[in-house]
Amino acid sequence: MTKKLWGGRFTKEQDPLFWKFQSSIDYDKELARYDVEASIAHAKMLGKCRIIPKKHAQAIVGGLSQILKNIEKGTFVVDPKAEDIHTAVYLALVKKKPKSADYLHTARSRNDQVVVDLLLYCKDKLSVITDQIKALQYSLAAFAEKNIDVIIPGLTHTQHAVPVLLAHQVLAYLNMLQRDIERLAQVKERCDIMPLGSCALAGTSLTIDRAYVAKLLGFSKVNENSIDAVSDRDFVIEILSAISIMFMHFSRFAEDMIIYSTPEFNIVDIGEAFCTGSSIMPQKKNPDSLELIRASCSQAYANLVSAMVMMKGLPLSYNRDMQLDKKPLFDSINLTETVLAILKGLVESMKVNKEKIQQRLADDESIFALDMAEYLVSRGVAFSEAHNVVGKVVVHATKNNVRISNIELDELKGFAKEFDSDVFNLLDAKRSVMSKRSIGSTNPLLVRQQLKKWHKKK
Amino acid sequence: MTKKLWGGRFTKEQDPLFWKFQSSIDYDKELARYDVEASIAHAKMLGKCRIIPKKHAQAIVGGLSQILKNIEKGTFVVDPKAEDIHTAVYLALVKKKPKSADYLHTARSRNDQVVVDLLLYCKDKLSVITDQIKALQYSLAAFAEKNIDVIIPGLTHTQHAVPVLLAHQVLAYLNMLQRDIERLAQVKERCDIMPLGSCALAGTSLTIDRAYVAKLLGFSKVNENSIDAVSDRDFVIEILSAISIMFMHFSRFAEDMIIYSTPEFNIVDIGEAFCTGSSIMPQKKNPDSLELIRASCSQAYANLVSAMVMMKGLPLSYNRDMQLDKKPLFDSINLTETVLAILKGLVESMKVNKEKIQQRLADDESIFALDMAEYLVSRGVAFSEAHNVVGKVVVHATKNNVRISNIELDELKGFAKEFDSDVFNLLDAKRSVMSKRSIGSTNPLLVRQQLKKWHKKK
Amino acid sequence: MTKKLWGGRFTKEQDPLFWKFQSSIDYDKELARYDVEASIAHAKMLGKCRIIPKKHAQAIVGGLSQILKNIEKGTFVVDPKAEDIHTAVYLALVKKKPKSADYLHTARSRNDQVVVDLLLYCKDKLSVITDQIKALQYSLAAFAEKNIDVIIPGLTHTQHAVPVLLAHQVLAYLNMLQRDIERLAQVKERCDIMPLGSCALAGTSLTIDRAYVAKLLGFSKVNENSIDAVSDRDFVIEILSAISIMFMHFSRFAEDMIIYSTPEFNIVDIGEAFCTGSSIMPQKKNPDSLELIRASCSQAYANLVSAMVMMKGLPLSYNRDMQLDKKPLFDSINLTETVLAILKGLVESMKVNKEKIQQRLADDESIFALDMAEYLVSRGVAFSEAHNVVGKVVVHATKNNVRISNIELDELKGFAKEFDSDVFNLLDAKRSVMSKRSIGSTNPLLVRQQLKKWHKKK
Amino acid sequence: MTKKLWGGRFTKEQDPLFWKFQSSIDYDKELARYDVEASIAHAKMLGKCRIIPKKHAQAIVGGLSQILKNIEKGTFVVDPKAEDIHTAVYLALVKKKPKSADYLHTARSRNDQVVVDLLLYCKDKLSVITDQIKALQYSLAAFAEKNIDVIIPGLTHTQHAVPVLLAHQVLAYLNMLQRDIERLAQVKERCDIMPLGSCALAGTSLTIDRAYVAKLLGFSKVNENSIDAVSDRDFVIEILSAISIMFMHFSRFAEDMIIYSTPEFNIVDIGEAFCTGSSIMPQKKNPDSLELIRASCSQAYANLVSAMVMMKGLPLSYNRDMQLDKKPLFDSINLTETVLAILKGLVESMKVNKEKIQQRLADDESIFALDMAEYLVSRGVAFSEAHNVVGKVVVHATKNNVRISNIELDELKGFAKEFDSDVFNLLDAKRSVMSKRSIGSTNPLLVRQQLKKWHKKK
Repeated sequence: MTKKLWGGRFTKEQDPLFWKFQSSIDYDKELARYDVEASIAHAKMLGKCRIIPKKHAQAIVGGLSQILKNIEKGTFVVDPKAEDIHTAVYLALVKKKPKSADYLHTARSRNDQVVVDLLLYCKDKLSVITDQIKALQYSLAAFAEKNIDVIIPGLTHTQHAVPVLLAHQVLAYLNMLQRDIERLAQVKERCDIMPLGSCALAGTSLTIDRAYVAKLLGFSKVNENSIDAVSDRDFVIEILSAISIMFMHFSRFAEDMIIYSTPEFNIVDIGEAFCTGSSIMPQKKNPDSLELIRASCSQAYANLVSAMVMMKGLPLSYNRDMQLDKKPLFDSINLTETVLAILKGLVESMKVNKEKIQQRLADDESIFALDMAEYLVSRGVAFSEAHNVVGKVVVHATKNNVRISNIELDELKGFAKEFDSDVFNLLDAKRSVMSKRSIGSTNPLLVRQQLKKWHKKK
Repeated sequence: MTKKLWGGRFTKEQDPLFWKFQSSIDYDKELARYDVEASIAHAKMLGKCRIIPKKHAQAIVGGLSQILKNIEKGTFVVDPKAEDIHTAVYLALVKKKPKSADYLHTARSRNDQVVVDLLLYCKDKLSVITDQIKALQYSLAAFAEKNIDVIIPGLTHTQHAVPVLLAHQVLAYLNMLQRDIERLAQVKERCDIMPLGSCALAGTSLTIDRAYVAKLLGFSKVNENSIDAVSDRDFVIEILSAISIMFMHFSRFAEDMIIYSTPEFNIVDIGEAFCTGSSIMPQKKNPDSLELIRASCSQAYANLVSAMVMMKGLPLSYNRDMQLDKKPLFDSINLTETVLAILKGLVESMKVNKEKIQQRLADDESIFALDMAEYLVSRGVAFSEAHNVVGKVVVHATKNNVRISNIELDELKGFAKEFDSDVFNLLDAKRSVMSKRSIGSTNPLLVRQQLKKWHKKK
Repeated sequence: MTKKLWGGRFTKEQDPLFWKFQSSIDYDKELARYDVEASIAHAKMLGKCRIIPKKHAQAIVGGLSQILKNIEKGTFVVDPKAEDIHTAVYLALVKKKPKSADYLHTARSRNDQVVVDLLLYCKDKLSVITDQIKALQYSLAAFAEKNIDVIIPGLTHTQHAVPVLLAHQVLAYLNMLQRDIERLAQVKERCDIMPLGSCALAGTSLTIDRAYVAKLLGFSKVNENSIDAVSDRDFVIEILSAISIMFMHFSRFAEDMIIYSTPEFNIVDIGEAFCTGSSIMPQKKNPDSLELIRASCSQAYANLVSAMVMMKGLPLSYNRDMQLDKKPLFDSINLTETVLAILKGLVESMKVNKEKIQQRLADDESIFALDMAEYLVSRGVAFSEAHNVVGKVVVHATKNNVRISNIELDELKGFAKEFDSDVFNLLDAKRSVMSKRSIGSTNPLLVRQQLKKWHKKK
Repeated sequence: MTKKLWGGRFTKEQDPLFWKFQSSIDYDKELARYDVEASIAHAKMLGKCRIIPKKHAQAIVGGLSQILKNIEKGTFVVDPKAEDIHTAVYLALVKKKPKSADYLHTARSRNDQVVVDLLLYCKDKLSVITDQIKALQYSLAAFAEKNIDVIIPGLTHTQHAVPVLLAHQVLAYLNMLQRDIERLAQVKERCDIMPLGSCALAGTSLTIDRAYVAKLLGFSKVNENSIDAVSDRDFVIEILSAISIMFMHFSRFAEDMIIYSTPEFNIVDIGEAFCTGSSIMPQKKNPDSLELIRASCSQAYANLVSAMVMMKGLPLSYNRDMQLDKKPLFDSINLTETVLAILKGLVESMKVNKEKIQQRLADDESIFALDMAEYLVSRGVAFSEAHNVVGKVVVHATKNNVRISNIELDELKGFAKEFDSDVFNLLDAKRSVMSKRSIGSTNPLLVRQQLKKWHKKK
């Protein structure tokens, strides 16, 4: 019969299909190092509190330390009969310390053990991801600075709105990512609470020292309700939610760059290293990286949905359903690490087609309509009136297929007497962005100031 | 430089991280046999139509047939440099038929190739799954027959409603599964349309014979719009939706059995082979199989969400985003195959605790309230009045902590003069189910009739 | 105390907040006419089967018929104390026929009553929606015919692929909608099964005639398992799923048109009647209708998720949770009716900017790369080789900033000796589409043939 | 022509169906008071900065203050022609101050206006909801104290695990709610950033004072990137996510109470005021409130999905799609307010069936298996061995249908020689909970200590 942590009461072997189905070792081996670290701390405490004989505690710590080294070296081999990582580590320990191993699983259940593993995993991964986001921010800031003078048609409704600095738009991405960092930091703090000692769901009659375990593992608090400790997966959902929002940001960036790299928009050029071709159309250079990143957003969302739906309506305390928190969590974490790394390279590969953009801005003078309206406002016209007037000018120009700059001043005055000859100066993208004064606006000075903040971040 | 199906236009190698990210070979190798079958048909057609030299067509068919055999024997080895299954098969063909392989990818794009692969895969898997559902139905019907005389408290709102045959409830599961079969059959029919020859998105100038390919591959129709053919993933979403509904059914069955196997309800006993124990509590026999099946529903839902969200707002025609249809599809299909197999075994392992159930039914006489109301109706009382009367009888019994069968007839007549001595006969579960007469009701004769239908199904 | 269908057993009034929360009358009043129709059929049957006195049955039918007329005229007033539509209709009947009303709710529960209401509603609405889809198809076909000669850059990955007829792309939308029709028809058939008589969950001891009720209500079958009848909401989820796929189609169409109506793409012009402006930028004409339709897809998806998640893990049979099937169902149905109506008008408002498109096609000769590769294939070159050669030609042209049509034949022959002077004829969009021959391709003759089918549909 | 904020450029009226579809006034009227408050601050600033004439600024502030009073009194009437709340307020202002109203919409777009409205709304509602959660916590704590001596079978896998205090389980709910409070507080802080002045997307050339507006409206920061300000809906998604987790908590509580109030478990009794009956079964008292709350979780999830899917892949900056953030946001906020209020009353209505529970605990002695194992550990047995031994004792008792307390000591010693006569003392629920010592355990002293913390919270 397979070696298990719970054999005694059973008189029959499990159905092999069910056994495979219920085994989590295929994916929870990601937790190996955290499981061992937590077990080392637990064994030290059991020895210190004299719950198990000191010599066995020492033997266990010794055996686990060797296993940890194997894990770090990549030489840890999972016993194929192990159903989960906890059993795998236990079986490895049995091999190394056969006389002591059976003392380890005292005052502990897999219910609290898996939570401490998960929390250690999450704290670790959230640090890694945060560093990656910062690195991506740095690359974006560098891209913005390299193209600090580039003005693009700012879009609302995917239609020309007003001219903006490309760097100004990049700052929007930087701010989005900054909120991502903030959210992850807050979840990480909520992960900083030590559950071991909650056991099955009610604690233990043995005189354990939970604070000591917390200290050894770097947690600043211990959980104060054992039922909650083994029932709670809020942190998993929170992380999946924060990652979903981050992928929503990625998907918007990807969409922008896909649009910008069409021959029609022709604003950016994605490096060949991040494109692929077609098996049938020889000319193709497709922005596959961006498309896959956009699509990955659906994967991140689905992982969140998976964990949320799984938890809905589960009675307290632990239910086996909760095993299915790990697949979506690990998938989203791994996906995040991958996509952040690719995005960084992709941003560094991007080139801007400055001439093409300038041309496009020169072609569409209606993009200065707001500048014209604010010009009238500064001459005392009520905004609603000014808006109305300029609207009519634009219709007039479109209908007669004439550039605004080619309309005679007298004709313009027919629309509003406040128009004067300097109105034509407005029809210039550079002047437009420089005229902006409000905090957070696309004014080049303000944009430069903002960008500096992101440099210091590095 | 890595061998690709689209190298010519590129002057640089892909970024290695991006390359790995965009490669689908890890999962689309599930399509291997379908990719080869489709390629064989395609090559035969190219030869027949003299689009490529006959000898090359024959060589290709020969080479691919060998590859197909390797796949069937499990000896096909994927070239680690292949980015997807199409490239893997091509590279294997190059090894076998170096002079001819380059003729295969004529009048074909990966855009239509992947669709034909997917459709062949879906048609195949839907057959397998349908057979599995039928087998599960058979096990359920056998379980119902074995326990044909067992009466349980039928529940609404998880509260006692009226007595029903356990077999009657099993028939509900059978009907749910029957709708699942119907839905899968309809999607399968919608998968019966051959897309090859749509090429990138617009068809080809070469004189191909699409009907011939369809015939070779067992499709009854060819797609009549090439843009739609490469843009469409409706069938993927439909399958994921049908599977989601099926898992919703599984989750309800699992919930019922989890509740029924608590010590409090104690209606069924899940075989040890489908339970596991606790690492800390020695007495535990937990229905993990049922819990994991209930939780799997969230995974099935998430896969549907993933595919739906991925497709939202995608411009026509093919986008690389669509590569992410495969992960959720394969995951849900594999999950379905596994869970159906486990459910079958689990149902076969289930035992019914007849005595405990009978006791419980005898304890709660309020479960016969509807019988009492219908008794009054048959004596001419309007239903609303009868309902009201019996409600008051129940409150009276509860308040005074007395069994209804112990209330004196005279006292009962005080609630409604139509009560007579035969009213006490109603307080019997067997009589209750036998009294039902409507089609579809829990009457044992009708239930037996229904069950026979499912036997014949086998 | 409020008049209810279930007062007798209760000694206390409900909490007012809970009462309001649990009331569904705000939204289930959509079911009014179906509830009355079903009640009329039920009363006729009760009378015919002599379960209630004939005179009361006749009085009930008479009263309900008056109520039905009021509903049709829009003069039916819901009693504010009614918690749901069933109670509202009952209270209205009490007013009209106080002596008979209490006989109506015999051999019936709200559990089966709400299902028959919902099924009648669904069957009705699915017919209406199907007609609307057909009308939209007609408008799309008319749009395609009006612009039958327009060639656009066919896109894959939102990048130029090969030239296609705009009408060919419209045919893709038509095919997508056709699958929507098919799916809705199949769900509608699954709705064609009469649940009344299932009562609470187990049927009734009264000698009802379910087949007669089915016939009166236009159902072709009766449900054969009463537990399933009151527990099943598959049809709700199925409809929400079919609608989700349809909205996915709408979102793709919307995305295409949003892109096509940017000044950069400039392919279509959305009628002003389907655009709005900006409160600050006077020049703006934004495609809000398309954006809102694209966004509505998320609402349709959410409704599906809502119903699916609600049903997960619900024990049989009826649970009050199931009341929350109606909000998402009604919302998606209403949204569908609205969006289909708007899409029809929007399509009719669309204009095509033929000159601009032609220009863009003339600008990008790399779009003919596949034509050049197939040219080489027809001269005996293996496709992989041909693909490679043309890829190099494209790179050469791009690098040297030269049009392909301006490369000397001799230079071309340097890439592949099979090139001849007629290769330059390929660089023409009209010729490109006309050269296509495969079924379903963009060949104008085939496209015209296809379009005819949709005309006949009308 | 309908009065709009953007008429000038348009020559045609909008399609009436589209007009209704795009109008948001039906739901965004929830923003009325926030829209007016923000406009007052904006007008004050425009006057102070001399962007508009002081007298007009004063007139506007005066007019808006009157409107605000009307809103507070509930007498504000929305102009049926208004498409959104911004227009409705503007039209009301035009009526009151016809000469000044047109000056208000200066240096402002609906793009930034709607964000400031939403943020003010969210900050306000999050405060209200937080107070409600605290009130619910107080009721739960009171319920726990009232039943401080009640011991129930603690469940894992919905199976008996170990005895726990009912109050200990209530503490789990309290901790869950506490995390909800924490999350809402963090989102609220992220809402504390003032977007007005970002205008369409790029800021303004007018010399506005954003800090002043922020101060007037109680924001502590201003947004530093105008494109991000109008493109960002993270806060909406975050709130919907935090609410989803909270409803997941509600659904678990509801599930627990539904199970506890079955006749089989019979632990709690839900007050009649929170139950309803059946229209057909006179005896029924169904926990509809709990079922509807459990189901509402799906509605909360769906709202999150709706907002997330809507935002996926949207190009910067503002798109009309984003209008669909409001429906799910408002729906989830309103649902939260309602459910929190109902839960409070429901908890206060709950009674505990102490005798029934005690009986059940006495019936199942296997629930003390962990106590027996820890007894052996304290006598030097390794835990794995102890676990194994007790497992066998349980099997022995079950097989022979004998209570553990009836096994002879000698027979017990046959399983492990460390068993002594005091082992039988363990088979007592009270002793079991009192024996627990670890922090967070179910020990009554620790539980009391914890409960005190929640009292102080009030």
